[in-house]
Amino acid sequence: MRLRHIKNADQDIKKSKYYVDDPESYKGSFNKLFNNKKPIHLEIGMGKGNFIIEMAKRFPDINFIGLEKFDSVLVKAVEKLESIELDNLKLIWYDAATIDNLFDKEIDTLYLNFSDPWPKKRHAKRRLTHESFLEKYDKIFKNTNNIIMKTDNRKLFEYSVKSFTDYGYKIEDISLDLHSDEVDIVETEYEKKFTKKGNVIYKVNVNK
Amino acid sequence: MRLRHIKNADQDIKKSKYYVDDPESYKGSFNKLFNNKKPIHLEIGMGKGNFIIEMAKRFPDINFIGLEKFDSVLVKAVEKLESIELDNLKLIWYDAATIDNLFDKEIDTLYLNFSDPWPKKRHAKRRLTHESFLEKYDKIFKNTNNIIMKTDNRKLFEYSVKSFTDYGYKIEDISLDLHSDEVDIVETEYEKKFTKKGNVIYKVNVNK
Repeated sequence: MRLRHIKNADQDIKKSKYYVDDPESYKGSFNKLFNNKKPIHLEIGMGKGNFIIEMAKRFPDINFIGLEKFDSVLVKAVEKLESIELDNLKLIWYDAATIDNLFDKEIDTLYLNFSDPWPKKRHAKRRLTHESFLEKYDKIFKNTNNIIMKTDNRKLFEYSVKSFTDYGYKIEDISLDLHSDEVDIVETEYEKKFTKKGNVIYKVNVNK
Repeated sequence: MRLRHIKNADQDIKKSKYYVDDPESYKGSFNKLFNNKKPIHLEIGMGKGNFIIEMAKRFPDINFIGLEKFDSVLVKAVEKLESIELDNLKLIWYDAATIDNLFDKEIDTLYLNFSDPWPKKRHAKRRLTHESFLEKYDKIFKNTNNIIMKTDNRKLFEYSVKSFTDYGYKIEDISLDLHSDEVDIVETEYEKKFTKKGNVIYKVNVNK
């Protein structure tokens, strides 16, 4: 993704009521942030927020946390949320590379939507489904590890299914053409654009 | 697949030098049938034989066995082989439902090409990748179980990848668009037809 520099993006993000300041201080006790013990679902790379905002609206009995590395896209989610009241959503400006410093056995479900495919082999370690990330995710899940991944990138999907199962994950559900199989799908910005172009969307739900 | 009745198909098959009479008598000693100890690769549902004949030509150091339930398609393979000399190929007219009565720890690789998808849920047990078949395959492999599957049927492929990994298989390799990824592919009759129609071909190689 090419990112445009957005002036004062960081300041706008920090002003949002959805923004979590000093998130590592909540490690192991994110339920306190929500003042309840509802399950927590996390999206890594939430981008402009379409998916996580819609999920939070649809499922009020689940707490949602959106993680995003780039302020230039996170600020778009913040803008969308300006006139929306949701008490089950928080946004964190953070690099998933150190996610094991952020959560401790408290996540129920992890969403990886249209993650950067890092197509070059020498960049494989940067893919969010690389073994080095899967090792980190082991530390964030409460009970069962549950990951739901969507992408239109065939090579990333093939790589990820193999990586998941190599690491001991079982396939709970898999679709090689999500939009033929399901209706009323909560879509990301990318997904809307790619589906319109006629791209196939792949989805897999794995757990261990 | 709709099958046409072919007159005298059974007699034509039995006359072929590739045909194995009383195949269960070779159980555990199929290497004797080939008079050597080369690895044995098996195709279940070889149909008209394009794939297995081409494989036998390309890989003289591997012994190939083609299994087919229906004489009306097996006879087509027999006809193709009339003017071909291959000492590393045998054909067996047999129902894979009792394959554990036929082989005993002697197969290296199993090919499942464009198997009947049995789309109705109540017929799931008939799919060649159903758990009940995977249990039988456990008895036929020599060392590592190695299965290579191709199909253009998305639902069968999704089902099979889940079934394989549920049963403890690891994904060695997976392609969700084989003909974009590989060249010089040994194709089945179906594969040629479906690829021309623009269908995507899925392939997975699993082992345990």
